Amino acid sequence: MDAPPLLNPAALPLAVDLYELTMLQAYLHSGLDGPATFSLFFRKLPARRSYAVACGQQEIAEQLPALRFQRTALDALAGVPGLSPALLDWLAGFRFSGTLRAVREGTPVFPQEPILEISGPLPEVQLLETLIMNQVHTQTVLATKAARVRHAAGPVPVVDFSMRRAHGIEASVRGVRAFHVGGLDATSNVLGGLSYGMPLSGTMAHSFIQAHESECQAFEDFWETSPQPTFLVDTYDSLRGVARVIELSRRLGRTPAAVRIDSGDLGTQAHAIRRMLDEAGLAEVRILVSGNLDEQAIAALRREGAPVDGFGIGTALGVSRDAPALDLVYKMVEYDGRPRAKRSPGKVQLPGPKQFWRRRDAAGRLLGDTLGLASEPPQAGEPQLRALIVDGEPVPGALEPLDAARAHCARELAGLPPERIALEADAPALDVSLTPALRALAEHH
Amino acid sequence: MDAPPLLNPAALPLAVDLYELTMLQAYLHSGLDGPATFSLFFRKLPARRSYAVACGQQEIAEQLPALRFQRTALDALAGVPGLSPALLDWLAGFRFSGTLRAVREGTPVFPQEPILEISGPLPEVQLLETLIMNQVHTQTVLATKAARVRHAAGPVPVVDFSMRRAHGIEASVRGVRAFHVGGLDATSNVLGGLSYGMPLSGTMAHSFIQAHESECQAFEDFWETSPQPTFLVDTYDSLRGVARVIELSRRLGRTPAAVRIDSGDLGTQAHAIRRMLDEAGLAEVRILVSGNLDEQAIAALRREGAPVDGFGIGTALGVSRDAPALDLVYKMVEYDGRPRAKRSPGKVQLPGPKQFWRRRDAAGRLLGDTLGLASEPPQAGEPQLRALIVDGEPVPGALEPLDAARAHCARELAGLPPERIALEADAPALDVSLTPALRALAEHH
Repeated sequence: MDAPPLLNPAALPLAVDLYELTMLQAYLHSGLDGPATFSLFFRKLPARRSYAVACGQQEIAEQLPALRFQRTALDALAGVPGLSPALLDWLAGFRFSGTLRAVREGTPVFPQEPILEISGPLPEVQLLETLIMNQVHTQTVLATKAARVRHAAGPVPVVDFSMRRAHGIEASVRGVRAFHVGGLDATSNVLGGLSYGMPLSGTMAHSFIQAHESECQAFEDFWETSPQPTFLVDTYDSLRGVARVIELSRRLGRTPAAVRIDSGDLGTQAHAIRRMLDEAGLAEVRILVSGNLDEQAIAALRREGAPVDGFGIGTALGVSRDAPALDLVYKMVEYDGRPRAKRSPGKVQLPGPKQFWRRRDAAGRLLGDTLGLASEPPQAGEPQLRALIVDGEPVPGALEPLDAARAHCARELAGLPPERIALEADAPALDVSLTPALRALAEHH
Repeated sequence: MDAPPLLNPAALPLAVDLYELTMLQAYLHSGLDGPATFSLFFRKLPARRSYAVACGQQEIAEQLPALRFQRTALDALAGVPGLSPALLDWLAGFRFSGTLRAVREGTPVFPQEPILEISGPLPEVQLLETLIMNQVHTQTVLATKAARVRHAAGPVPVVDFSMRRAHGIEASVRGVRAFHVGGLDATSNVLGGLSYGMPLSGTMAHSFIQAHESECQAFEDFWETSPQPTFLVDTYDSLRGVARVIELSRRLGRTPAAVRIDSGDLGTQAHAIRRMLDEAGLAEVRILVSGNLDEQAIAALRREGAPVDGFGIGTALGVSRDAPALDLVYKMVEYDGRPRAKRSPGKVQLPGPKQFWRRRDAAGRLLGDTLGLASEPPQAGEPQLRALIVDGEPVPGALEPLDAARAHCARELAGLPPERIALEADAPALDVSLTPALRALAEHH
């Protein structure tokens, strides 16, 4: 039941910014092919975010060893003015020979903490800049949004309805993966669900009702091919729609799985619908709500005690509407054995390849992180960056199943201070301190 | 120089929400396969938008006639619980046999105006809902953002630097197309540029400077392989970086194309750099700026008279950060010859297949739109929806080159009232009136 892959592997290596190719050309010309390390991190969190859930780095670890410039890609590049034959030859022979270290997917991360570090010959790791940034950025933004939605919904199931408003099919598919890591329960996205083996969920659209002569006829028709239907009841009038479901249920002697409302005052309607269903002896019929939901609206419905058994969330999730981007950067931290850093105004950067350690108490509560140099002796706590690829070879057993990443994310978030992962928290959920060695290197660099 | 296609055609038809398949199954079971028309439009504009630039509908017109469920896709679907063999058989034989009408790409559109309408047997047009919405939504959101950036930048060239923070590679590539329609000038995105034949632009990253022993050595090395370089001068200190460029220029007797600054106070630095370059006899060296730009920041730099010769814009453009989604809906407006509409509270919808006409004065200024029924006699003005596919066959000559869409967009926006397309305008840029026939149908439906 695996779906066909969405992206053409012949096109993927062309996911570069032109400057990577012009820089490569200069590196090759000057023989600048010493070992380099780049670090992927963010300097600050967007408004309304107190953490980011790292996601996508395992897909990068799967993509890199297979990345090849095939003939079609090289032919296309040959048409770009200014690219040298030497560069095209080098690209034709490209195989990633470096090392990739990354935090586990589902790990909440904070400013300055590397999500991943990549080491290898300078031209190789420079070439991969845009692909790595694009892929990890997308899934990290989306997993973070999903974790917030999960937090708001508590134990109530949440289904992803966002495919239609995601930025492209690819974003919607990668979103399914990220939403699972962030804690959502199912998706309506067929390609995404099949690609990653996620539970699919689907009901009916208003057009289904409108195509029938009557709402009642529509429900009856749907029931013939869907044994456990969820009826969309708000096409004309939600309460009358529910009355029709009840009447049909009696007439056929069957019980639907759920009703769904997608417009109007969801809380008020849910209360009224719950009463109608209960009085009709249909206490097991669930109420699903959707329609312009985000984590704030979900939290508000739960605060007012709305009897909702499932949320469907679309646009706000699929584009992470309130924070669609993260200030993720890919910066050189070492070249040829020497720490490097940019010193532009307002963008101070910590030099050197890094590691960070997460400290917990006996109950599993997160106490803080220590950010230091990869070359330092281990600090207290658990080291967070782990090797996924070493010298071009995938580390056996290093990639973990998505369910493990999801469980890891849930555990880590449960261990964070409640007041600092609240939806409205405006500070990072965890303190990050620097080791004396890193601090000294940063000051004297 | 065509790039390999990014998306695998075998995966594309799986870009559906599950409910489309469960509805289809019920349609097939009940024989509900009469002619239906769906309309793609939005009910209201997001905050900070006074128009949307329709984009992506030509790509849909290219995709639909080729869309097939191949064996790999059908095998994947066979594993989804609850889908019937009858449905899978129908999908195996699917060919789009309907009609697609759409506005020209680059057309500014307003609430309730269809971007496209699609007619055909109900199961076919229901099946295509998510694919059409996803693709047109993405490019319309991104073209709209680009048009605002174009408006802010006036005649100053703007380059797309957004690939790394777009939501996936696909979004970045489709973005290149949409940004061109919206009026931007070039892109750093190699795959996107090659896919659509757009001008590529690229300079160097801070890591290039950092990899060298000195900034000066980095500039000199780069110049050896790039005859018309743009030097990034802010890695350590912008003004010292410019001084090095000037010194190197003298020493080598060559003139670079430009310098770029990416951090700090861009306006103040641009003034200082302009003076330095002019005093050094390098008046033709351009100044490019980038770094967290959006249309407001670009407008502010131009208002203060900053001597900027080109803008590079990334994240804010690539995810349309202030308005990453549009309330685009795909609604049934007719089935089996009868107008249909949803009547849920707060979501009133106009029934019937539509056309709209755009009225202009002799100087080309846009006076207003008239929204009516497709079956009505022509109204004053130019009809906006044009057939791209009829009965499954592409209309010869109906697709226009992207440059024509770009020119159309520029002309249309230039014809809108200036105060209503200002960046801060909070009302639609054009009045849309309904024909009496549409009004009557909506009231008595």
